[in-house]
Amino acid sequence: MPNEHANRRPAQGRFAYQGLDRVIHERARLGLLTTLITASAPVAFNDLKQLCTLTDGNLSRHLKVLEDEQLVAIEKGTDHNRPLTLCRITPRGRIRYLEYLSTLEQVLKDAAAIAGTGEEEKSADPFLRLRPATQ
Amino acid sequence: MPNEHANRRPAQGRFAYQGLDRVIHERARLGLLTTLITASAPVAFNDLKQLCTLTDGNLSRHLKVLEDEQLVAIEKGTDHNRPLTLCRITPRGRIRYLEYLSTLEQVLKDAAAIAGTGEEEKSADPFLRLRPATQ
Repeated sequence: MPNEHANRRPAQGRFAYQGLDRVIHERARLGLLTTLITASAPVAFNDLKQLCTLTDGNLSRHLKVLEDEQLVAIEKGTDHNRPLTLCRITPRGRIRYLEYLSTLEQVLKDAAAIAGTGEEEKSADPFLRLRPATQ
Repeated sequence: MPNEHANRRPAQGRFAYQGLDRVIHERARLGLLTTLITASAPVAFNDLKQLCTLTDGNLSRHLKVLEDEQLVAIEKGTDHNRPLTLCRITPRGRIRYLEYLSTLEQVLKDAAAIAGTGEEEKSADPFLRLRPATQ
């Protein structure tokens, strides 16, 4: 039996964004990694707290997740005899962040169709006018 | 007592990205809203499933969250006598999505410093060389 919609099926997974790695996508961790990847040197725990507006507990918890995934490295040292915890992104973290970023860029490209011209709208709307709008 | 770092404190909340609304930021819901906001007509439940690679259960759950926040509207109707559920983004959803998007753009702008030139790096690294790199 012919299917009149056969050629108009929505593209499987077109908006699944599976590259949005859950470890990185979480808001606080996205902020932390963006801080660390753009910093020119390791960043102190207390500075991360301020830059990302996190409590001690939240920052520790998210750093632990990132450390367990080997995306950041944490070093304990001293500064003028006071304890100092320094955080940096690892090479693995850098790669994973860049992969994540490419999917994030895709979201923005797709979303560019919203305000957009008919041209843009078509390119991000590859799937349907399968069914009419509601009556 | 003078503080040698007084003028070099990290910018409070510079990387907090509080505009990344948790309702929208969740990966599946970001995909759903991007689908709906770029679609030219309401999208059928089954098509959303395919486009976002979600199971029935997950799709229902995320749509419920979005509906509770009045970001999407769901209408039940029929198509050739078969039940058909259609989803669309609400005007409120559109506004919230656009607000979200502006923060997402900021993340990408900040991240642009990674590969970037010294110029870009300075602009996204407003806080420190507070402390030296590890020895």
